[in-house]
Amino acid sequence: MNAILHQICRDCAPLSALGAVANYIPELAKADPEKFGICLYTGGGNANFAGDFLERFTMQSIVKPLILLQALLDSGEDAVRNLVGVEATGKPFDAFNYSDQALTGAHINPMINTGAIALCTLIHGDTYEERFCRLLELARQLSGNPELGVDEAVYHSEKATGNKNRALAYMLKAYGMIHDPVEDIVDCYFRACSIRVNCVELANIAFLFANHGRDFRSGQQLFPAKHARYVNAILATCGMYDGSGEFALRVGFPAKSGVGGGILGVVPGRMGIGVFSPALDKKGNSVAGIRALELLSQELNLSIY
Amino acid sequence: MNAILHQICRDCAPLSALGAVANYIPELAKADPEKFGICLYTGGGNANFAGDFLERFTMQSIVKPLILLQALLDSGEDAVRNLVGVEATGKPFDAFNYSDQALTGAHINPMINTGAIALCTLIHGDTYEERFCRLLELARQLSGNPELGVDEAVYHSEKATGNKNRALAYMLKAYGMIHDPVEDIVDCYFRACSIRVNCVELANIAFLFANHGRDFRSGQQLFPAKHARYVNAILATCGMYDGSGEFALRVGFPAKSGVGGGILGVVPGRMGIGVFSPALDKKGNSVAGIRALELLSQELNLSIY
Amino acid sequence: MNAILHQICRDCAPLSALGAVANYIPELAKADPEKFGICLYTGGGNANFAGDFLERFTMQSIVKPLILLQALLDSGEDAVRNLVGVEATGKPFDAFNYSDQALTGAHINPMINTGAIALCTLIHGDTYEERFCRLLELARQLSGNPELGVDEAVYHSEKATGNKNRALAYMLKAYGMIHDPVEDIVDCYFRACSIRVNCVELANIAFLFANHGRDFRSGQQLFPAKHARYVNAILATCGMYDGSGEFALRVGFPAKSGVGGGILGVVPGRMGIGVFSPALDKKGNSVAGIRALELLSQELNLSIY
Amino acid sequence: MNAILHQICRDCAPLSALGAVANYIPELAKADPEKFGICLYTGGGNANFAGDFLERFTMQSIVKPLILLQALLDSGEDAVRNLVGVEATGKPFDAFNYSDQALTGAHINPMINTGAIALCTLIHGDTYEERFCRLLELARQLSGNPELGVDEAVYHSEKATGNKNRALAYMLKAYGMIHDPVEDIVDCYFRACSIRVNCVELANIAFLFANHGRDFRSGQQLFPAKHARYVNAILATCGMYDGSGEFALRVGFPAKSGVGGGILGVVPGRMGIGVFSPALDKKGNSVAGIRALELLSQELNLSIY
Repeated sequence: MNAILHQICRDCAPLSALGAVANYIPELAKADPEKFGICLYTGGGNANFAGDFLERFTMQSIVKPLILLQALLDSGEDAVRNLVGVEATGKPFDAFNYSDQALTGAHINPMINTGAIALCTLIHGDTYEERFCRLLELARQLSGNPELGVDEAVYHSEKATGNKNRALAYMLKAYGMIHDPVEDIVDCYFRACSIRVNCVELANIAFLFANHGRDFRSGQQLFPAKHARYVNAILATCGMYDGSGEFALRVGFPAKSGVGGGILGVVPGRMGIGVFSPALDKKGNSVAGIRALELLSQELNLSIY
Repeated sequence: MNAILHQICRDCAPLSALGAVANYIPELAKADPEKFGICLYTGGGNANFAGDFLERFTMQSIVKPLILLQALLDSGEDAVRNLVGVEATGKPFDAFNYSDQALTGAHINPMINTGAIALCTLIHGDTYEERFCRLLELARQLSGNPELGVDEAVYHSEKATGNKNRALAYMLKAYGMIHDPVEDIVDCYFRACSIRVNCVELANIAFLFANHGRDFRSGQQLFPAKHARYVNAILATCGMYDGSGEFALRVGFPAKSGVGGGILGVVPGRMGIGVFSPALDKKGNSVAGIRALELLSQELNLSIY
Repeated sequence: MNAILHQICRDCAPLSALGAVANYIPELAKADPEKFGICLYTGGGNANFAGDFLERFTMQSIVKPLILLQALLDSGEDAVRNLVGVEATGKPFDAFNYSDQALTGAHINPMINTGAIALCTLIHGDTYEERFCRLLELARQLSGNPELGVDEAVYHSEKATGNKNRALAYMLKAYGMIHDPVEDIVDCYFRACSIRVNCVELANIAFLFANHGRDFRSGQQLFPAKHARYVNAILATCGMYDGSGEFALRVGFPAKSGVGGGILGVVPGRMGIGVFSPALDKKGNSVAGIRALELLSQELNLSIY
Repeated sequence: MNAILHQICRDCAPLSALGAVANYIPELAKADPEKFGICLYTGGGNANFAGDFLERFTMQSIVKPLILLQALLDSGEDAVRNLVGVEATGKPFDAFNYSDQALTGAHINPMINTGAIALCTLIHGDTYEERFCRLLELARQLSGNPELGVDEAVYHSEKATGNKNRALAYMLKAYGMIHDPVEDIVDCYFRACSIRVNCVELANIAFLFANHGRDFRSGQQLFPAKHARYVNAILATCGMYDGSGEFALRVGFPAKSGVGGGILGVVPGRMGIGVFSPALDKKGNSVAGIRALELLSQELNLSIY
């Protein structure tokens, strides 16, 4: 297995030349496009890894499945489902193109910005500071690293430039889908996106979704299996933005990418994967990361289809 | 002429039953749908009027031609034209439906909210308080009433509920079309929309556009004729929202409506008209007001087409 | 006046270098981009002209106002208005982008292809051959040239390649807006677009719209004044495709362009204009033709706004 | 297992009252909404079934995976991928809403009408009659019923009323994505949609996709495993129209519905399912059919997520 991973590492790392590091948040533009790391976790003792698997990067959209999970845990499936739909939108993650006269939950889903921002309001907490802390706590618990924290430079960079997210949030508010102060909600969202992880931690989180919420080591059910299936199903249809169909064909399991360059890969019942390479394709997915998952899927026969 | 106006008043006032007072701003919902006023001004000594022509109401979108004029005066035609397009959008005034990947001036125009908000940034002033004061000063000068002021209740109601306008403004900011703090800009816009006028004052303003900027009484050119033509041309194609084509057919001259129930009618070279009735059709135009202008156009042969 | 026209001719003809001859219909691509002609008709004895004013070209979309007029004459204003709306669509002339679930008259207008195709069904005739003949007869009568005919090469070229128009027509049929065989209807439309005119004939047609249907020489009312106003109003708001707003600003009167390079200019109550130069801008309007009308409007103060 | 199926049959059949039989093709409106049938095939000797499992109905959109498979077999993955994209469109199956200025493969996919029509041109054959015969032959082979044929009444009904599909096909032709005569292509498509099957045959077809192309009985590989995965991946993301996300959540395996009331369910590596009940929900999916698959998935733990 380690040999496979090292080979993938050698084959894929150079592909970052075909993409470009995200630059819409100034701080993200500083990422080193040469970095490439991967980690596989199949439960039990050891994980397998290669490359810069300890390199830290911000979760960005990878935090969306955690926001969804926390909203499910705190407010239940009905409330989540009533607020935010589950269909692929056929549009980019930050699309501003809704029906003219009304915005409803049916137009959005938890894996696009509008949906994730809306779901922050279903996390419990007296303040959005508290809600963010619950999210961070969840990330720490699932990743197995109680030290997980926010990259303050990225967070401030997002907060300073995140006007499109503010626009989307005011739109939600204008249509009565959210009620709290927009700045508080997007602050929670910006901080959540700025949580810093490495590939090992991603693989741990992914494994818990793959294992339907049951911690392999302790045997403890960290969250209900039905929530894991809810998240995995949405990842399969919308996790890779408007590249989700292509990803299903080429790779074939639920996954979630972030513009920080990470991808969380969930092979239900088998394996969690974390991969990282910051150069992105035009849809915002890591070029080398997708190729690595494709090779891995072929090598280990991971497609669920 | 007065006989014609009184007849129109009798015929049209009851039509308010076919529409509904605007309710998206709570304070506007308090308007009395029974009110109907009209005033014609053709230069020289007397204006003609009928009904509740002294009833005051907020300008709402009728302030958009004034924002456009002030932006033209302060920053020039090139700057205005570069920031905001001139084509009809085929969409409602507050549409949120732009191309997915980019928002440019070509997608908006000065008579929809997005365009008018953007143009506030081209009015001179160290603060948005100052910019609003320039707008108010312009409204006072053109209307001939130096006492014109803001309806504070409507202004606060708009400020409290204007989240769609905030969303549009953040969108403009996200695409680098505006740079100042969103809350300052929309505050200027909300206050401008809340300036209170009556039909006589509207007719005076309209006459100055009809007379291409020249004050009939003093003979003074209050603003360049080319700016009047710029505004009138845009009113003819986009002044009545997505009812502009229908209005051109049925009435046939440049006009601008507002959800407060007023309509500013400009008959180039001949006449300025102010009409008021707060019940609106589905496109946001005064039902009785449009019918009054249609009858007047037929009676006096006012169509420019 | 002739001196003005010759100056405009010298100034504008070279502008064709900034555009490109239409190539979506193969036969149109053969037009000579160097040609430039203009003609003004103000009623009475003489017309004024300059350049290649006798050069013949196909009407293309300029036939749309004639289709609209014939439909008004044959089926009346209510039938026309019920079938096809009057608002600017904010989209290109051949846009394929309607609401997902339904197409209604409100989404189209007589100056875009979908609307013009629909209106062919409101022209009287047992066959579409007969309906086309009525249209041709109208064009002959209004232009004053009883010899007007179809450019067979262009007609066959359009028929061979006009699949987008067939798509639009089948869409109309799918939504129950038209009922006759699609191929018959689009054949009528293709032939109408292929009627060949010169600038003098265009100016004659335009003058009849400007003079509200009354023939200056015979004093005869060729069609009702209200139909002229209907057509002129629509030309003012939608006649130059999604460049109609810009045209209103820069030129300021109703007009209709065609991808053959002609523009029909209507100055209500004053003048009819025909101009021709086959190189088009990106919106499908003649580059040199628009500029010529702009100079003429400035020189003779023709703006109606 | 049979007990489970009979229970599902009793529980789900009455749900047809919540939907409505398709009426956009007149002939389909004649279906009996009371019918409900289901069949499971897991390879080997026996299938399990309940209800009206021998009732015949037309495949409608369920033929789309067969069109895709035949195109893959005849022209290869690259040709298929170049012509037609793989992303969910976020729109209804017959949406007419593409980008204004261009239609490309990226806007469509094999499970919406536009994509399926385009793929008919990648099936081998000198005529579209021949291409249809290849499709029918494939359906016969995969279903195990060499007698499979077309419901002539439905076929003629579709041919008579299928103008939206003609519109979509002319659009494809206008953008150079297809080249053959539109009427030939849509005729092939209409006939393919009208192939009549029952639940047992659907389950057999589904099982072959689930078993990655290998016939359980003969051990023969009927088509390459990679094509099965290609089809299954697309079914998972787009097989249930704009209800695919919801289906992934509630049921959790690849499936394809048709407006005839059938659903083909593919549980990779395990099982093929055919279910039938003609009353549809608003998205065009069988109401009782979806609920039956949901219960079955819960009972047998079939979700792949």
